[in-house]
Amino acid sequence: MKAIVIHGAKDLRVETTTSEPLGPGQIRLRLAAGGVCGSDLHYYNHGGFGTVRLREPMILGHEVSARVMELGDGVTGFCNGQLVAVSPSRPCGTCRYCQEGLPNHCLNMRFYGSAMPFPHIQGAFREELIVEAAQCVDATGLSAGEAAMAEPLAVTLHATLRAGSLMGKRVLVTGCGPIGVLSILCARRAGAAEIVATDLSEFTLGLARKCGADRVLNMATHPDALADYTVDKGHFDLLYECTGAAPALSAAIAALRPRGIVLQLGLGGDMSLPMMAITAKELDLRGSFRFHAEFATGVTLMQKGLIDVTPLIPHTLPLAEAEAAFRIAADRSQAMKAQIRFADA
Amino acid sequence: MKAIVIHGAKDLRVETTTSEPLGPGQIRLRLAAGGVCGSDLHYYNHGGFGTVRLREPMILGHEVSARVMELGDGVTGFCNGQLVAVSPSRPCGTCRYCQEGLPNHCLNMRFYGSAMPFPHIQGAFREELIVEAAQCVDATGLSAGEAAMAEPLAVTLHATLRAGSLMGKRVLVTGCGPIGVLSILCARRAGAAEIVATDLSEFTLGLARKCGADRVLNMATHPDALADYTVDKGHFDLLYECTGAAPALSAAIAALRPRGIVLQLGLGGDMSLPMMAITAKELDLRGSFRFHAEFATGVTLMQKGLIDVTPLIPHTLPLAEAEAAFRIAADRSQAMKAQIRFADA
Amino acid sequence: MKAIVIHGAKDLRVETTTSEPLGPGQIRLRLAAGGVCGSDLHYYNHGGFGTVRLREPMILGHEVSARVMELGDGVTGFCNGQLVAVSPSRPCGTCRYCQEGLPNHCLNMRFYGSAMPFPHIQGAFREELIVEAAQCVDATGLSAGEAAMAEPLAVTLHATLRAGSLMGKRVLVTGCGPIGVLSILCARRAGAAEIVATDLSEFTLGLARKCGADRVLNMATHPDALADYTVDKGHFDLLYECTGAAPALSAAIAALRPRGIVLQLGLGGDMSLPMMAITAKELDLRGSFRFHAEFATGVTLMQKGLIDVTPLIPHTLPLAEAEAAFRIAADRSQAMKAQIRFADA
Amino acid sequence: MKAIVIHGAKDLRVETTTSEPLGPGQIRLRLAAGGVCGSDLHYYNHGGFGTVRLREPMILGHEVSARVMELGDGVTGFCNGQLVAVSPSRPCGTCRYCQEGLPNHCLNMRFYGSAMPFPHIQGAFREELIVEAAQCVDATGLSAGEAAMAEPLAVTLHATLRAGSLMGKRVLVTGCGPIGVLSILCARRAGAAEIVATDLSEFTLGLARKCGADRVLNMATHPDALADYTVDKGHFDLLYECTGAAPALSAAIAALRPRGIVLQLGLGGDMSLPMMAITAKELDLRGSFRFHAEFATGVTLMQKGLIDVTPLIPHTLPLAEAEAAFRIAADRSQAMKAQIRFADA
Repeated sequence: MKAIVIHGAKDLRVETTTSEPLGPGQIRLRLAAGGVCGSDLHYYNHGGFGTVRLREPMILGHEVSARVMELGDGVTGFCNGQLVAVSPSRPCGTCRYCQEGLPNHCLNMRFYGSAMPFPHIQGAFREELIVEAAQCVDATGLSAGEAAMAEPLAVTLHATLRAGSLMGKRVLVTGCGPIGVLSILCARRAGAAEIVATDLSEFTLGLARKCGADRVLNMATHPDALADYTVDKGHFDLLYECTGAAPALSAAIAALRPRGIVLQLGLGGDMSLPMMAITAKELDLRGSFRFHAEFATGVTLMQKGLIDVTPLIPHTLPLAEAEAAFRIAADRSQAMKAQIRFADA
Repeated sequence: MKAIVIHGAKDLRVETTTSEPLGPGQIRLRLAAGGVCGSDLHYYNHGGFGTVRLREPMILGHEVSARVMELGDGVTGFCNGQLVAVSPSRPCGTCRYCQEGLPNHCLNMRFYGSAMPFPHIQGAFREELIVEAAQCVDATGLSAGEAAMAEPLAVTLHATLRAGSLMGKRVLVTGCGPIGVLSILCARRAGAAEIVATDLSEFTLGLARKCGADRVLNMATHPDALADYTVDKGHFDLLYECTGAAPALSAAIAALRPRGIVLQLGLGGDMSLPMMAITAKELDLRGSFRFHAEFATGVTLMQKGLIDVTPLIPHTLPLAEAEAAFRIAADRSQAMKAQIRFADA
Repeated sequence: MKAIVIHGAKDLRVETTTSEPLGPGQIRLRLAAGGVCGSDLHYYNHGGFGTVRLREPMILGHEVSARVMELGDGVTGFCNGQLVAVSPSRPCGTCRYCQEGLPNHCLNMRFYGSAMPFPHIQGAFREELIVEAAQCVDATGLSAGEAAMAEPLAVTLHATLRAGSLMGKRVLVTGCGPIGVLSILCARRAGAAEIVATDLSEFTLGLARKCGADRVLNMATHPDALADYTVDKGHFDLLYECTGAAPALSAAIAALRPRGIVLQLGLGGDMSLPMMAITAKELDLRGSFRFHAEFATGVTLMQKGLIDVTPLIPHTLPLAEAEAAFRIAADRSQAMKAQIRFADA
Repeated sequence: MKAIVIHGAKDLRVETTTSEPLGPGQIRLRLAAGGVCGSDLHYYNHGGFGTVRLREPMILGHEVSARVMELGDGVTGFCNGQLVAVSPSRPCGTCRYCQEGLPNHCLNMRFYGSAMPFPHIQGAFREELIVEAAQCVDATGLSAGEAAMAEPLAVTLHATLRAGSLMGKRVLVTGCGPIGVLSILCARRAGAAEIVATDLSEFTLGLARKCGADRVLNMATHPDALADYTVDKGHFDLLYECTGAAPALSAAIAALRPRGIVLQLGLGGDMSLPMMAITAKELDLRGSFRFHAEFATGVTLMQKGLIDVTPLIPHTLPLAEAEAAFRIAADRSQAMKAQIRFADA
């Protein structure tokens, strides 16, 4: 079978690898669709991010849907050909954080396609994948592309849960890449009364509006667009910070009201923050990282039509053109999200 | 001008009263629509509830919309003929609870149409009404009937905020009167992944389903319908208890999972509760009472099409037939909510 | 070795039983002290409580301290003769509630000395006890009697954590048995600014004052003693309800301020509650049940001198007089807590 | 009467000013003691901080206790000579934040001794002071010096309340100036099980230990002293950040466990933060600013002996030596806090 393997910056290969044996409690899957994520792009463009560097070839990918091929001993509740969304979250279940109900902080996490540990954790972009049954969530009724969106949707659902209730709240979203736009979908679903989104690209802002933003602001053409929101110590209750860029965060902080919450989703390096404003307005800056139970929740919300991710996924390419998918995913002027089609899904 | 005055049980009169003077900061309104609420019905049917008894004639009503007639000195931001939703919440702003941000617990609250204090607080069912400008919320784009639903909607929004985040939660609603159905609308808007509703009437259950319940259960014909939800210590994360009836609450408690939340909205007298289950499952029973800021929030959510209350208001009668409206409102087999039309709204 | 076995109501026997084998990861303990708990008394006096009935002989006891005798394979960090507090909480670690970080709601909990499942879970009142190493908390520096108080202390610590911050809060404690008095100790430690305690016995109220209550009220001699606290909708932020008696709860609810919290610790059957007050004051009634991580926390707080339980444990009897200990524990006019001495601790 | 007036950097004068008239609802006070605060020092040393600059002479001071001299019309509950702690928090009571119960974010706050607005808000270091009765908290039983500590204590109580429950928590305090040491006192009172404090000075670390820190670390002599606390993703649940220095915050963040909370108390300018760690560990960085109700709470806790601030206030100088007090307050190698004695208190 074939897999998408990164060997170094700009060195992406579709290679043949061997199938793995199927154990008890596991399921053999035939991959349907796989989305290219920001961290995949980092490995492709730079060979890593921050201090994390590729030290051996690694299969990429952790946003995948698949069809059931074969059930291991003891597995029930699935049938051949069934579409499933595959959670890349594989916590150990026994470390102190797992036992506290915080599996996303597992000390032994084996998240797909990560070069953080060595040997690296191989990813999910392969035609055949062996998974634990608990990773599979029934996705009947969804397209393969929608099911593959369960992973980034889970990231934004998890962040949304970190914010407490959004009912009737005023929400600002800085950065309208996939995570920003999914944040808009989540905020609207969670009852936000007002959603304003900022970005530097008209293309992504158009999509933000299509996905529910009440107003979109192009900070490239109107750098002071948030100024109206700074009177009386600020306007917004909640900020989804999806840029990882200090200037975006600083401008947004001025528009947050006292006791406002910042959800930090954009992964950057060190950032210079206006601590005087954070202290004096008693803001609450909360990191949000990955997800666990939210993966299944997101699939349910999509199945019930309560969240519609289809506007985000117009670009799908066959496995043979995997590298083109990576290039498209990196071009924010034309694409939000690129997916790779592994089989006739 | 005319007003709807209750003199005692079953003694409802449409009477002529005099207009009041308009002071600074106030607005003179021409009433558009008024909804008959459960507490109005209690005064009509029983002359009061619990220890609260009518001791003098009282104008009923606190769910009203109106059109602006005349602005008092210093009032800006409104224009003649504009439709407004009128909040009946009139806290003092200075007592300890107001200063703590809990105006619904104001020690000097003057909520419309309440026989709790003496002299009674007169209600809003009158053709002309003088209000503080702060009570008026612009309702442009809504029908008069929708705008008059802002009050009961605010009750359920307030309860929903008492529950914290509902995103992805499993919700049970017991009792599908207006408060129950509005709770369903709020829970769906707030991101609930699963909503099950119970009642004894097919009519109201039909409306519950129309307003977003995933499943409805008729406890009259299927008394054990919740049994499936009691395995493994229970299924639901959250209960909106809208019956005020102990058997409904007890049955629902068995279907709540450990750490589940009960929002108590149904106003009953003393109730016998299964304290062993509440303690052993560590349930969290939270009273919810009235609202304040949620009134404007509800209007906004209706204006943006994020909550649609129109299925609840099919019965509207002219002022001359006010008593008929009270009779219809009391008949849960044919009506959810009856409204009175005060003018050509 | 000897064990304290209940055969039925008033049929308590000190019997000889055989030692168990020591497995890997386990520790063999020589019991030091054991406290008689309310549930032990229920089995002794009534053969059970509620629907829970003795159906076979059962070793009682779950409040114990012990000394290390022998370490099973792989156990480190303990040495012979070391005093340990023994947690009776034995969750499975793998069920849905354990994985959510709620081990006290474990679907397969094996809490010592419980007749809820059949076969019953045998208790800890035996001269020799085999436990998992994870159950043992180093109690160096404490007396055997203090270490045996770690269990009821953990119950009240868990309840205290259910209340959120107590810093500067006004606290009412109804019922000054061991759980009530330990609640006072916890509330004071957690920063309560004012603590008022009620009971019907001068003996227990004296102890309540000794343990930090600012004021004690004898409801037997002064039934209206809480009336002063009901003005302006109530005074207390928090109630530890430790009686399980409806009249105590009702009187206390009238003295709680809006948004006050009720921690329900007293295990009663069905209770009639003033739901009108709970709803209108938006009270928050929270069940609290057992504990897990709080067991070790309590030992630490005692070791550092931050909580002092010694005033509660004046009555200690040798194993041969076990039944006398049960009789003393039941007499609230002379004793707060009776403990049994298993060895020269 | 005399007042302490700052005219510019290093230009502090004890000047004669005129008394003010006493209005209804007010109290005339004779100042007893006044503490020199960090912001007073900023005005003295630098003529301001950040963008805030002295533009006219300003009376300094906001940490004061006083004795009642004369009651304005309508004031009851105070008597001549009574010692009171004087809250500098004077919110308007009517702006949106006051009405939401967030008076510390009042849009019209008149906090003593602030050059933020112009004309500046004059401070409280004057022999006679006219205040609203609501600013006065009875301090009977305290020394004048303790009563003057109510203000900084309120700052740390407010921060502590921002953290939720501390019961059984592991707390790190970076920076052992007055705010850091008061944080230790608050954390211990709130039930912290373990408190570690860091600073660069042996003098302040000694005081930290005296006030309840379990362990103190000198980061000047042992820069890696926190390394032991970074294993398994970190140790501490909560950080009081009292330095306002980025390196201290970064080192502390590495020692915080996932979901840990950072209370940001140190007021610095922009700070460079390790956002990757904040995001990946899902930390929660919360600003804390001033206080309101906590002022009275702190006085109560001191009166009951539940918090003892006396170790912090060994240096008291007469009014005539005010400038010396400022110099001592600035020297962290010999003093924690300097107070000025205005009268024979």
